[in-house]
Amino acid sequence: MSAGVVNRQLLLTRYADNLPGEEHFTLTESPVGTPDEGQVLVKVLYLSMDPAPRMRMSGGSALPQLPLNTVMIGRGIGQVVASRDPRYPEGAFVMGEPGWQEYACIPADGLRLIDPSLGPLPAHLGALGNSGLAAYFATLRQGSPKPGETLVINAAAGSVASIAGQIARIHGVRVVGIAGGSVQLDYLRNDLRFDAAVDYQAPDFASQLSAALPNGVDVFLDLVGGETHDAVMRHLNVHARIVLVGVIASYNRPPDEVDTGQRHLLTWINRRVRLSGFLVGDYAAEFPDALRQIAAWIREGRIVTRETVFDGLEACPHAFRALFGSDHVGKLLVRL
Amino acid sequence: MSAGVVNRQLLLTRYADNLPGEEHFTLTESPVGTPDEGQVLVKVLYLSMDPAPRMRMSGGSALPQLPLNTVMIGRGIGQVVASRDPRYPEGAFVMGEPGWQEYACIPADGLRLIDPSLGPLPAHLGALGNSGLAAYFATLRQGSPKPGETLVINAAAGSVASIAGQIARIHGVRVVGIAGGSVQLDYLRNDLRFDAAVDYQAPDFASQLSAALPNGVDVFLDLVGGETHDAVMRHLNVHARIVLVGVIASYNRPPDEVDTGQRHLLTWINRRVRLSGFLVGDYAAEFPDALRQIAAWIREGRIVTRETVFDGLEACPHAFRALFGSDHVGKLLVRL
Repeated sequence: MSAGVVNRQLLLTRYADNLPGEEHFTLTESPVGTPDEGQVLVKVLYLSMDPAPRMRMSGGSALPQLPLNTVMIGRGIGQVVASRDPRYPEGAFVMGEPGWQEYACIPADGLRLIDPSLGPLPAHLGALGNSGLAAYFATLRQGSPKPGETLVINAAAGSVASIAGQIARIHGVRVVGIAGGSVQLDYLRNDLRFDAAVDYQAPDFASQLSAALPNGVDVFLDLVGGETHDAVMRHLNVHARIVLVGVIASYNRPPDEVDTGQRHLLTWINRRVRLSGFLVGDYAAEFPDALRQIAAWIREGRIVTRETVFDGLEACPHAFRALFGSDHVGKLLVRL
Repeated sequence: MSAGVVNRQLLLTRYADNLPGEEHFTLTESPVGTPDEGQVLVKVLYLSMDPAPRMRMSGGSALPQLPLNTVMIGRGIGQVVASRDPRYPEGAFVMGEPGWQEYACIPADGLRLIDPSLGPLPAHLGALGNSGLAAYFATLRQGSPKPGETLVINAAAGSVASIAGQIARIHGVRVVGIAGGSVQLDYLRNDLRFDAAVDYQAPDFASQLSAALPNGVDVFLDLVGGETHDAVMRHLNVHARIVLVGVIASYNRPPDEVDTGQRHLLTWINRRVRLSGFLVGDYAAEFPDALRQIAAWIREGRIVTRETVFDGLEACPHAFRALFGSDHVGKLLVRL
């Protein structure tokens, strides 16, 4: 790495009360660092836009807030340009949490090598990355749908749900996706070929959902919480399983506002529902096998994927905001 | 059964918006019926006061409301006085759902024979009945605490929780009970010998609870919902299990009022909590084995039980209301 190379970074400079946008970030430049022992210097190639980091942008959230004037956090893929750890030689492709910047010195223990033979680089942030892994383990380990059962998923055109729904269909499960607007619904129907797609923005959402669920719900992968969560509760079968993957509906709430709403304890008792909180990291030991399986399904055409790619570090705030809208489908990425 | 015997009954004659009381019931008399084929005529000896029937006293509840001017529902124990089913001969003691009346013609399929050798009659509505069975299966099958773990239970001086806590202690689990007022707290500390007892009516409830949970919560048997539910959420360990047994805090809500409150989805995700709705009927095939085990623990002095007994059919409304107060401990019964 030649000295004097400039690292452009996006700092979080204002906390957000609602949707994130350009007003919360400031572009800055600093010299590229040199890795200490146990660190790796990575040139960032793709940044992954994921909803959970939004929570760290609020003061007073349940999760620790990010200090102001630090680089915004985020997952990404890069290439090693200097290494102080023998597991990650120069030139290797790695996955980690570089944050919103062009170069990052990252502790080697926070990295994972990418196997480029499994698929193109951007796919390693989607179907072959945490999105695909979350879809795989949430569906097969915690939802455990049986052939002929019905699985419902919200944020269904997004990176996790679009793969989860396809994995469920591979296993003979009827899949109903909840998404918003015609772009996303067309994607569910025509590309992902879900058994039914329901528009939560439509005035007749409730009756659309009823019509799509003639046999009720056996498994609900809940990525959103909020109103779609409540709507699905009315259709749970006895012994239904709810996998709690995310609460996207809550991430943009003002920090002093508690998540309040209907409580469904009595429904869960009467129908003996099982709910389980899900974090993909619990399955880390099984990632290699799962990735090989997902890669095989992609090669066989049984899983299709799509990325929405924005260009340049400056696009990050806009791309991040798009994550909470209904104009994109599949994995949202920024290419640096 | 000689003709002309009078059956006294308590009819539900008014729906309740809040606590149940005498104003909702009317005493009436009718002739004792004769059993049809497949029915059994039972002389009721003890009625069990349980919270769930309260829900049927509200118009517009999630559960079907009881029609007005019908006998109030409730479990009980009685002796067969006339039978049209060979499994239940005259003189046998049976458990079932006679409702609030002195005689009941009950379909034989809704009955269960009582084995009087296991313990005294009233115990068959408590530790040796549904309360004990619910405690046994909720604790050991769905909570599954390991030795050294911490189990928290609310409505802890009541019939289910008092047994559940003792079963957990037999298995080497640290048990923390949440109850209200000095009568109940003394019972938890001195009779049940729970490891800690916390008063939800005390102004310093939150700090009492924190002090009682130095190692957090591994298993929460939730019989109540409401504020004690919310308080426990702040102490859940990673991979905690919540067994949803009841929602006593909600049973007296006006029928048009939805159960609304804090939603804990994000907490359940971050700590990978598992929740499961519980109904004891799912374990019916295993009742005989469980009852033998509970009876053995009672004989060995490892489970102590207490009944609060009211006398006479007229006492039912008062006894039922007491269920939602904090002046009684153990199983609430009415002796006819």
